[in-house]
Order: sequence, then structure tokens, then C-alpha cells
Amino acid sequence: MHSLTAFLAFFAVFINDASNQVTNTEYRLNYHVQPEQGWANDPNGPIHWNNQYHLFYQHYPNSSSPDWSDMHWGHVVSPDLVHWKYLPIALTPDQHYDKNGCWSGSAVDDNGTLTLIYTGYVQLNSSTSWQNQNIATSKDGVTFTKYEKNPVIKTWPIDGSDNFRDPNVWKHKEIWYMVVGNQNVNNRGRVVLYKSKDLRNWGYVGVLASSETLGTMWEMPDFFELDGKFVLIVNPQNLPRDDYNYVSLQSAGYFVGDYDYETNIFKHGPYHEVDLGHDFVETRTFFDQSTNRRMIFGWMGMWDAYFPEKNDGWAGAHTIPRELHLNENGKLTMTPVAELKLLRENQIYNSRILVSEQFDTGIPLNSTELFINIPIDKLKADKAGFTFTCMQNVAAGWGQFRVYYDKKREKIVSTRIKDQREADWKGASEISLHIYVDRSSIEIFVNGGITFTSRFYVPWLPTLTLFTENGQAEVDVQAYSLKNIWKN
Amino acid sequence: MHSLTAFLAFFAVFINDASNQVTNTEYRLNYHVQPEQGWANDPNGPIHWNNQYHLFYQHYPNSSSPDWSDMHWGHVVSPDLVHWKYLPIALTPDQHYDKNGCWSGSAVDDNGTLTLIYTGYVQLNSSTSWQNQNIATSKDGVTFTKYEKNPVIKTWPIDGSDNFRDPNVWKHKEIWYMVVGNQNVNNRGRVVLYKSKDLRNWGYVGVLASSETLGTMWEMPDFFELDGKFVLIVNPQNLPRDDYNYVSLQSAGYFVGDYDYETNIFKHGPYHEVDLGHDFVETRTFFDQSTNRRMIFGWMGMWDAYFPEKNDGWAGAHTIPRELHLNENGKLTMTPVAELKLLRENQIYNSRILVSEQFDTGIPLNSTELFINIPIDKLKADKAGFTFTCMQNVAAGWGQFRVYYDKKREKIVSTRIKDQREADWKGASEISLHIYVDRSSIEIFVNGGITFTSRFYVPWLPTLTLFTENGQAEVDVQAYSLKNIWKN
Repeated sequence: MHSLTAFLAFFAVFINDASNQVTNTEYRLNYHVQPEQGWANDPNGPIHWNNQYHLFYQHYPNSSSPDWSDMHWGHVVSPDLVHWKYLPIALTPDQHYDKNGCWSGSAVDDNGTLTLIYTGYVQLNSSTSWQNQNIATSKDGVTFTKYEKNPVIKTWPIDGSDNFRDPNVWKHKEIWYMVVGNQNVNNRGRVVLYKSKDLRNWGYVGVLASSETLGTMWEMPDFFELDGKFVLIVNPQNLPRDDYNYVSLQSAGYFVGDYDYETNIFKHGPYHEVDLGHDFVETRTFFDQSTNRRMIFGWMGMWDAYFPEKNDGWAGAHTIPRELHLNENGKLTMTPVAELKLLRENQIYNSRILVSEQFDTGIPLNSTELFINIPIDKLKADKAGFTFTCMQNVAAGWGQFRVYYDKKREKIVSTRIKDQREADWKGASEISLHIYVDRSSIEIFVNGGITFTSRFYVPWLPTLTLFTENGQAEVDVQAYSLKNIWKN
Repeated sequence: MHSLTAFLAFFAVFINDASNQVTNTEYRLNYHVQPEQGWANDPNGPIHWNNQYHLFYQHYPNSSSPDWSDMHWGHVVSPDLVHWKYLPIALTPDQHYDKNGCWSGSAVDDNGTLTLIYTGYVQLNSSTSWQNQNIATSKDGVTFTKYEKNPVIKTWPIDGSDNFRDPNVWKHKEIWYMVVGNQNVNNRGRVVLYKSKDLRNWGYVGVLASSETLGTMWEMPDFFELDGKFVLIVNPQNLPRDDYNYVSLQSAGYFVGDYDYETNIFKHGPYHEVDLGHDFVETRTFFDQSTNRRMIFGWMGMWDAYFPEKNDGWAGAHTIPRELHLNENGKLTMTPVAELKLLRENQIYNSRILVSEQFDTGIPLNSTELFINIPIDKLKADKAGFTFTCMQNVAAGWGQFRVYYDKKREKIVSTRIKDQREADWKGASEISLHIYVDRSSIEIFVNGGITFTSRFYVPWLPTLTLFTENGQAEVDVQAYSLKNIWKN
């Protein structure tokens, strides 16, 4: 018995535990959507319905290590996109067509009825599954009833594979449209389109978009009008890395183009990634008619990520809501929604600092909003930015999270220990960073354009250190402490 | 009892097990030095002594997951640098000065006596240790006796930290010299020098080299003459990544310069990395007087690496021996020692192939020597190289290992799933790759110059697929099957 106890104790320290309650809050987020306990991945069905914002998410409530054959829909609700509270689990896998999982989908307002459209998942054997599309409805926004004639789409297009999931539904001129992620027969990613008058009877329209080079499967498709163009977001698997493109194990990217509903022809430009950080994938957007905004949530995770909070009985979280636009170059931009100002408690820092090598501001990186500006014309260093210490993993110990402008290479760089991400930043006169730090997550919005979203782990509270390499830089820093929405 | 059994079974599948014997040989190497069972890291004390080559290594025999407070010295011997056999463990931590580990060191021939010089490690509390230098001697090359007056160096220089380890000893004009890895009081890496007439009484000479920017601790120093210059190899910890420099968690690099024994002044050039692959660190060189060659072994591992062979009762391996030289640009080059031709069984492939997109040669990547040549003047593609499928990790599944020439960027690139490594390759007329594949390791020697060393994992035997992007390439491929030295 003694050796067995030692064996278990050994694993308890080093290995992800499978607790079904939060046993340690050290990495819990203060203002992000995260599971009450257990596991969360893809955000599902964000919607403004009945004067409230609803967000669902892939959820395994019984353990922080998901059982992939038993996925639920978690559910939170908010009056203002900032203050969230937990509702009961919306969908549980309990039918013959979804017995191994209620996988991702979307939500629509069907003439006052909150309607979820989701993928039923049934594992047939080790290599074959039955993925089908279903609906569930609610009058009160809390309790959902699965449609008695589910699945509403029983099987995938004949020229596709059984990877057929993540429906996204919208209405255009009294017709419902649905995009679904799929593979063609060569195992390359594509998006297929369906339409319906009643959300229950669907006709196959055809392939909306596909690629022979951009990955093997496109998950979580999203198709919408934005600033006069059409945008298709997909989340491709197995996209080979090329220099600093497609660095994450799974990519989240988009095409911008023009679409003709009559012919189902989507003419679009090249693929670009939505966010360049370490932990961002499986996106879902929604249009809020009450404020005329298209917004996006992403999963702040990655499939090969570390998730030390698994030891604490939970894992996974979603980004803050971000407003989407196209800039003058036709690139997608994300900015934090204005409502997030509701989180501010106190301004805790406001200084211009002449940084030479290193300057610890002492600003605690806990629940913090930061504005960091670096005028490039006053930059007399090869690199300038900020850094803090975080964890690599149990065996490998500690290292630096660094975000900086590399003057020689004209790049914005975000490095977590050794995992470097970067973006071209040519010809700008200023680096303007708007940053949301939340205990174990950081979202960096660069000059209102590109973003870097990452998780990080450090048992103590790190502070913001400014740094330069080979010279000096003037840096303006403003900081606000932010509320914890989960404590009442 | 049932739930406990399930709990253990769950971990047995997903988690590194701690077996003390090899339970599954699927990832065992055919011709590399690897532990008979249990864990191996740093190579120690390579030496040609009494007509045999000896190699030692950091070794935890009781489990594939090392107990860092109980490290031994494993021991193998070879007549020819190719055929190795196991000898009994050379050093066991059993003295008051090494009770928590016999850490890395070197070996010398002291007038016919094989003498090991190693670091004794004693953990004093969670943040403080006693690291000291010791000797052990052997007349038969099998059994070692620790010197009764150990430690021969009891403590670190007064201006350094307790990180004081990995002695490397050589003789110059009847005087023994020892370099030791250390930190200065600012926690920056340095190498300190000692000298002795008898290996037992040592005097401190001073700091040989240090840096305020190149990492926090320099492990495994090595200092030697080569092709008319002096080379210092160090293995720095916590070197921040900069683009594709210093990508691995721990770096192995070198300085080339001139040294004056009288003044202990080492004037040297910039730091360069020894190998650019995913798994190469903790190097140890030796001079073989019988053949007048300086050779190097590295550990084929990294501190944040995956090591799925831990599940099989073993972990870690060392590179093939490589001959060191300086090229015309003063850069260190490594080439496989000529003796490795002894491994060849049959030539299994010899063809020129016109590759367009993809061509599977069918060459099994098991125990294989490859020569792949890509003439750049005949290259009509953006990228050309080879690829095979390997594993990311249990949760993240499969991906591609790819090695290619990127024509637009003039780089040689080695990508394991998403972990990209690369080197400038400007102005060359040919890509000439000499490759040693050994079941779960690959060592790539590019045009006799730079190298990429990595581990990879795939349960089946992958085959070599050639590929191009956006065009065609002519590729010459030769392959040899290689022996398994461990089966008799």
C-alpha cells in the first residue's frame, strides 16, 4: 500500500488531475468566461436574445480532462457582455443521434424562440463517426428541448467525408442559411451550404469554399457581411507551418470577398489569420442587432497547450468579446467592445518612462487593463517592449513572456519562453498596445489592428517590466485595475 | 477498488510511466547509445583509453522518469565508436558529498589510470545546494574508486553562485586544467578555470569567459584547441529566443578565439549554436590521440521534450560521434565519424527523381543512412525537400516532419509539426544532406556544415516522401539500411 500511495502522490504533483470541482483558484480568470468547473472548449451560439447576451460553449462538466465522447453545451448569460453568470447546462448528449457528444453550433432567434443548431456526434468505430445536424429550442432561454425529428440534416454531402460539423445559421431575406465544416474526398477542408424556410427542412446548396492547400478539415465556419464585404472564417486543421505563418497547431483564419446568394459564388482573396497569439482558435461571431455590431469570441486555448489549471479542477476559457471590422486594406480587425470599460476600478499607473535595458513598473499583472505606447521616432534601441516571468512546464521551469517591437526587422513580436509569434509592422510611427491581462491570460491589441492572445502561468503575481535592447526608448504606460465579475 | 483500477489504467495510457525495465522496444534506437533501461541525459567523459572508447552518461537506472536527487553515471564501451556494449554503472551517489547525485564531468588518462572528474550534488534546501568537484579512478576501466579525500574542489569561487558543475579536464604541458560551469553574482553564465599538477590539489585561476546577455547559467563547458584556434563550448540556460536563434529551451553554443595560458585571456568572437535541431544540448567533446581527431557527443533531448519512450521503461539517447572542425569562416562543423560506414548493410535506393508536389520513395525510415542532393540551379519550385508523418503528442495527434530548402528566403528549414528551425543558406549551388535516421531520431548534416538533430515518434515505420511547393525539383536520393548494434 505504501508504494501505491507514493505512486499516486507522484502523479498528483506532476500530472493533470481529473477533479470535477475547482480545488484551487490560483489561475481562475477575473472577467473572462470560463467553466464553473471541468473543461471548456469552442464558444458556441453567441446571441443577443430577449435583452440578454447568451454564450454557450463545449463543456465537459465532470472533469477538467474532457471525455471527448461525452461533450455538453455549457451556458452563461450577461446583460452587458461584461457581467456573466452561469445557467444550467443547455445540452446533454442523451439521444441516439448525439450519444457521444453535442458538438459545436450556433443560435438564432426564430420568431421569439431561442433555437440552437448543433452537431450530433456518434462514434461508430475507431475511424468512423456519424456527424449530423440538430436543433433544440427554448422559450425561456434556460431549458432546451431537442426537436423530435432530429437530426434535421442526417448525413454529409455525398462527395464529402464524415467530418461534418459546427453549423452556423443566419437569416437572409426570410430564408435560413447554414454553413457546415466538412472535408472533400481528398481530405481537404471545405465549407458546405444549406438553406431552409423553417430550420427543420434543409436543402443542400453546394460548396461555399474549399482549398487543396489550406489544411485537412475546416472547423467552425462563420460567414457574414461586414462593412460592405463578405467574410468567411474557418478554423483549419493540419495547416503546415511556414515561417511565422500558421504557427499554432490549429489555425483560425478568414477570407474576404464578394458573395452572390443567387449563384452561391464566393469570390475571395487570400487566407489570413484572425489572431497571432499562442492560444486562439475555434471562433464564433454573432451580429447584435440591438447595437448593430458584429462581434467575435475565440477559445483561449490550443490543442497541444499545457493547461496547468487542469490540476485545479477546471480548464479552458474564452476571449473577451471583440468588435469586428475591415480596415482600409481589407484586413479583419478586432477591438475590445466598449462595454469592457465597465470593468475599470482605478487608474493605477500613468507615466512616461525612459527605458534603458530594464524598468520594473511594479504594475501587478492580475486583473489589469494596460495602454503601452512606444513612439518609433523616439526609439533609440533595437528592441523595446515589455516582459514578465511565466512557466514553461513543470520539468522545464521558468522563462520570459516578451512582447516587443523589433526595429531592425520591423516586426511586432510576442514570445512565450521559446514560442515566438510575430507580425510585420512596417512604416508605422507608433506602437500602441491595448492589453487585457487576466491572471493567466493576455490579449494584446496592436494599434487597433492585429491581436495576440495567449495564456500564461506563474504561481505568484508577476509585474510589468519594460525593456530595451541596445539603447533607450520612451514608453508611455497607463494601467487600470479591473473588477472580478465572478465574486459577488 | 474498481475506480482505483480505472484511475491507474487511465494514467497508464496517457501518462509517462515509471517502469525500471524496457517494456516496449518500439522506439528503441538501432545504433545510438541509449540507456539499457531507465533514464539518460548528458554524455559524460568520452575517452579513448586502453584501446577502447568509453562513454559515460547521466543515468537514472530505476525509472524512465529521473529522480534528480539520485543521478548515476551509466557506462558503455566500444572498440570502434560504432559497436557499443553496456558496462556496470560507473558512479553511484553514496557519499556525503554526492549523496543527491553524481553529476556530469569528464575523463582523463592519468598515466594509465582512467580518472573521472565529476560534480557531487547535495541538496541543502529547496533553493540551495552544495555542488563540488570530485575524482574517481579505475585500473580496469570497469570498477571505479572514489578518492578518499574528495571533494577535490569543495566550493565555488567567492564571486559566484552555488551553480558550479560539469568539470572538464585536460592536460597542457604537464599541467592539468579544469573548466567548470558557474554563475556570477548577477546570475549570469560564466566558465571558471582551475589548474593542478596531480588532479587532487587544484588552484583557482579565474574566469575564462562570461556574458551579461547569454543566459543565466552555463552548463557543460568544454575548452580545446581546434585547427589552430581555441573553441569554448557552453550550454546556456534561459537564453531568450530571437527569431530563429536560440529556439530550444536550452542552447548549446560556442565561441572561437585565441587563448593565452600565461594570462588566462581568451579573446573570442560571437556566440553561435552548435546544432540547429529540436533535440540537441549538453555536449561533451574529446580528443582521440590514436586518430588525431576532436569528436563530440550531444544529448538527443531537450528539457521540455515529450519522450513517449518513458512509457516503455527508458528515455534519452546520445548523438552519433561527430568529428569537429572549423571551416574557412571560422564556424564549427560536425561530420559523422568515418567509422559509421561499418553500420551499412545494403544500399537500398539510388535514383534521381523529378519531384512535382509529392513523391513517396518507399524508403523505410527505420535504421537508415540517406544522401539527398538538390541542385539549386535545377530547382524550379519555391520549396523542395522531404517529409514524413510523426506524432505531436497524445492529445494533438499527428503532423508532418519536414526538411526543405526555401528558395525565396534562402533558408534550410526543419519543421517538426509546428516547431520550425532554420538556417541561412545563401549563395549555395546545391543542397547536400547526409542523414542518419534511427527509428525515433534523425541527424541531418547539411553540406558538411550545419546540423539539425531531432527526435520524432510514429508508431508505424514512416517512409521518405519528397515534396515541392509551386514547381518541380530534381532530387538525387541514395539510401543504405544500417545494422542494429544492440542485437547479437
